[in-house]
Amino acid sequence: MRTYIKDLKGHVGKNINIAGWVDVRRDHGKLIFVDIRDVTGKVQTVVHPDQSEAHAQAEKIRPEWVVEISGKVNKRPDKMVNPDHPLGDIEISIEKITVISAAAELPFDLQEKLNIDTYLDHLPLTLRTPRAKAIFTVESKIVQAYREFLVGEGFTEFQSPKIVGGDAEGGAGVFRVNYIDDHDAYLATSPQLYKQIMVGAFEKVFAIGNVFRAEKHHTTRHLLEYTSLDFEMGFIKNHLDVMNVVTKLMHYTNDFLQKNCVDEFKLLDAEFAKIPEEIPYMKLREAQELIKKETGEDCTKEKDLTPEHERWLSAYALKKFDSDFIFITHFPIEKTAFYAYEDENDPGYTNYFDLLFRGVELNSGGQRVHDYETLMKRMEQKGLDPEKFSFYLQAFKYGMPPHGGIGMGLERMTARFLNLSNVKEATLFPREINRIDKLLST
Amino acid sequence: MRTYIKDLKGHVGKNINIAGWVDVRRDHGKLIFVDIRDVTGKVQTVVHPDQSEAHAQAEKIRPEWVVEISGKVNKRPDKMVNPDHPLGDIEISIEKITVISAAAELPFDLQEKLNIDTYLDHLPLTLRTPRAKAIFTVESKIVQAYREFLVGEGFTEFQSPKIVGGDAEGGAGVFRVNYIDDHDAYLATSPQLYKQIMVGAFEKVFAIGNVFRAEKHHTTRHLLEYTSLDFEMGFIKNHLDVMNVVTKLMHYTNDFLQKNCVDEFKLLDAEFAKIPEEIPYMKLREAQELIKKETGEDCTKEKDLTPEHERWLSAYALKKFDSDFIFITHFPIEKTAFYAYEDENDPGYTNYFDLLFRGVELNSGGQRVHDYETLMKRMEQKGLDPEKFSFYLQAFKYGMPPHGGIGMGLERMTARFLNLSNVKEATLFPREINRIDKLLST
Repeated sequence: MRTYIKDLKGHVGKNINIAGWVDVRRDHGKLIFVDIRDVTGKVQTVVHPDQSEAHAQAEKIRPEWVVEISGKVNKRPDKMVNPDHPLGDIEISIEKITVISAAAELPFDLQEKLNIDTYLDHLPLTLRTPRAKAIFTVESKIVQAYREFLVGEGFTEFQSPKIVGGDAEGGAGVFRVNYIDDHDAYLATSPQLYKQIMVGAFEKVFAIGNVFRAEKHHTTRHLLEYTSLDFEMGFIKNHLDVMNVVTKLMHYTNDFLQKNCVDEFKLLDAEFAKIPEEIPYMKLREAQELIKKETGEDCTKEKDLTPEHERWLSAYALKKFDSDFIFITHFPIEKTAFYAYEDENDPGYTNYFDLLFRGVELNSGGQRVHDYETLMKRMEQKGLDPEKFSFYLQAFKYGMPPHGGIGMGLERMTARFLNLSNVKEATLFPREINRIDKLLST
Repeated sequence: MRTYIKDLKGHVGKNINIAGWVDVRRDHGKLIFVDIRDVTGKVQTVVHPDQSEAHAQAEKIRPEWVVEISGKVNKRPDKMVNPDHPLGDIEISIEKITVISAAAELPFDLQEKLNIDTYLDHLPLTLRTPRAKAIFTVESKIVQAYREFLVGEGFTEFQSPKIVGGDAEGGAGVFRVNYIDDHDAYLATSPQLYKQIMVGAFEKVFAIGNVFRAEKHHTTRHLLEYTSLDFEMGFIKNHLDVMNVVTKLMHYTNDFLQKNCVDEFKLLDAEFAKIPEEIPYMKLREAQELIKKETGEDCTKEKDLTPEHERWLSAYALKKFDSDFIFITHFPIEKTAFYAYEDENDPGYTNYFDLLFRGVELNSGGQRVHDYETLMKRMEQKGLDPEKFSFYLQAFKYGMPPHGGIGMGLERMTARFLNLSNVKEATLFPREINRIDKLLST
C-alpha cells in the first residue's frame, strides 16, 4: 500500500511505503541521504549502514531512478529541521529499496538553470524540474478557473473544429492540410465563426482548444500553435457587457490562483495580479493623446498600439490606478475584422477592445455585427466573398441577437501571471518555425 | 433589465422584460400567441387586440426573429395550464414588442424531424432545435463530469499539441500539414506519446482535445475529427488499476447526468446507464469461447472483436450482470501498439482492454511498457524506427514508473448515453470524407 508523500506527516513513528523518483542523492559514506519526489511532494530519506541490503541499493541508485521505499517515518531532531520545506521536520529511515526503473546518467544537472534550447531539447526530462512543474500546474489551474467561472455564469462549453474548409478571412498565416481525395482544408486560426454560430443556439458559450498560426514570427510572445480560451455571449447592450464579464473572470482567476497556487507563485517569485473592482479603460485615441502629452511622442496617426505603447500604458495604469490591467477600446474600423461592430456614436470606430496585462495584450474582443445586411456590406468592403461564408451566414439570416466575446491565449496569460520573459516557457511542447519537439532538420 | 425565462415564476403579477427568439407563433386573429425561448427556457406570451402597436408587431414577426418583449406575468386559468411544461401555468401578457433582428423565412419547419443531410447542411439553424440543444448540453456535461472527477482524483490537465513532427506510428490515416519552409508536419491521431511523457513529470494527467483520423470510413461511428478524452496515470500495479478509475469515472458521469440532465434525457427518450459497482470483465479468449458456446459461431481464431461480437457481449453483460458496460481484456500482442504491456502471466497477450458500452467500444486502454529496453525491442519487432521516437524515448531513458490509461471519443460516449444511432448527431460540426460544414464539391 503506497502512501503519498504529502500524507507522511500523519504517519510519524509508523512504517510506510512510498514510491517516486530519486530527486537528489547525497552519499556521506555511512549515511546515504536520498530525496524522493512523487506527484504530491518531496521528502528526505536516509539509509543507515546496518541496513546492508538497502545500503547497497542506495549506493547504486542515481537521480531520476524510479524506486519504492519501505521504511519508518521519524521526526527529525530539532536542529535538523528544515523550516523552508513542508516536510522539513520528518525523515524516512529506509528499510528496503526496490528499484522499479533505472535511469541513464543525466545529460546535465537538473537543479541548474538551463538555457531555453537545452530545456526544449530535453522536455521529457526537463518538465520534471520544480520550475516547469510549477508553471504548468498554474496553467492547469487557470484553465480550471476559466471553466468554473463561465459554467457558473451559465455558459455552455463546446468543442470547436480545428479542420476548416476555407481560408475564409483571407489572412496570411493559415496552415494548409491535405484532406481527403485531394481536397485542401485548413487549420482554424480561431473558433470565432463557430462560437458566433453557437450563440444562435446556446446564447452563452465558451471553447478551450488549440488554434494555429502559420506565421514566421520569432519573438518571445508568438507561437504557431497555442491554446485559445474563447467565449461569446448574446443579448449584450454593447462591448461594456463583455468587458464586465472579462473583469469578473480576471478577479475569479486571480482569487483562484491565490487559493490554489501559493507555493508555485513563491517558487517562481511571481506576484498575484492587482485588479481594481473596475478595470480602467480608454479609447485608443485617448491613449494616444495621453502618450503624446506625457512623453512627447506623437502616435496619434497610428491605427494600433505598438508593443512599446502597450508597455507604457500598462505602467501608466499601474501607477495611476494600481491596476495590472487596462482596456483600450475603439479601434479604427479598417483595422478590425469584418464582424467588428461599428459604434453608432463614434462612426469609423468599433466596439472592440484589447486588454493589456502587465505590458502585453492579453486578449482582444468586443461586440460583433449581428445584422445580416450589415455583415454582407462589411464583407464587401473588406473584399471578402460572401459565398465562402454561406454556412456561417445562415446564423445571421435566421435571427441573431447582439453579441460579443473574446479570445485569449492561455500560454500568454500564464506567462503574464508568472512574469515569464518568454511565452515558450508557458507552452508545454512549443511549435516554432524551426522546431516540432526536435529541431527540424533542413 | 432582462429577466431570464426560467425565473419568470417568481414574477407573477409583475411587469418584466424578456428577450429571445420567436419559437412558435399562433395567430388566432384577435389573440396572437408567441412562444419565446431564451437560453434558460421557453414561455408562452399573448398579445391582445387592445395593445394595438404590439398587436401590429405580432402580426409581422415570424419564427427565429429575435425580439424583446415587455409585459406582465399572469397565472393561467386552471383549464389552460399545461402540466407537461415547467412554465405551463404562466403566460406573459404582451405590452410591447421590440424587434432586435428579423429572420428570413425558414427553409423547413424546425419542429419536424429532419433527415441527417438537411440537418447538417443547416447547422447554424438546426442546432437551435430542442433535440440538438439537449444533445450538446449533455455532451458539455459529460466533459464537465470528466474534468471534475479527474481533478478530484489528483490528475493535472494539460494541452496536448495537435501538430506533430512525424507520422511516427506509421499507421494509415494521418493528415499531412504543410508546415513552415516546406517542412511536412502531421495532425495528431492521439495525445498518447505526450501523455506518457507527462506521466514522467506529473504522474497523473488528463487531456481533452481534438484528434484527427484521415480514414475513408463512412460509418455511423467513425469521424475524421473528434474530441478525445484521455488520461494516463503512473505507479499502477497493472491494467486493473486503470479499469478501476474508468469504473469510478463512469459512475461519476452517470450520477452527474442524473443530477443535471433529467430534462434532456426525457426529451431524447434516453435512459441513464446501468453500472454495477464493479464492471464485469473477461479476456478476449474467454469472450470468444463464450460466443462459441452460446451461439455456435467459432471466432476463437480471431485477433479482435467484430462489431457483431461487441453487440452480443453487451447484450450478454446486460442480461447476466444488469450492466450496460463490460471490459474485454488481453488482446494479442501482435494486434496492440508497440507500447502495450505484455502480461508476464499470459505471454503473447497484453494488459490491454476495450470497454464496451451498449454494444459499441467506448474506449480502449491498458498498461503501457515503462522499461526503456523493452520499448526499444518492441519497436524493432513492429518495424518502427526508434530514431523517429527519440524525443518520446527520453522519458523512458530517464526513469518511468509502470503506468497506463485510456482514450475515448466524447462524441461516441454521448451517442451511447443517449442511444443515438449515428455518432454525427453527437458531433457539433462533423468532418466527413465529403463534408467540412458544407459538402465538398468535386
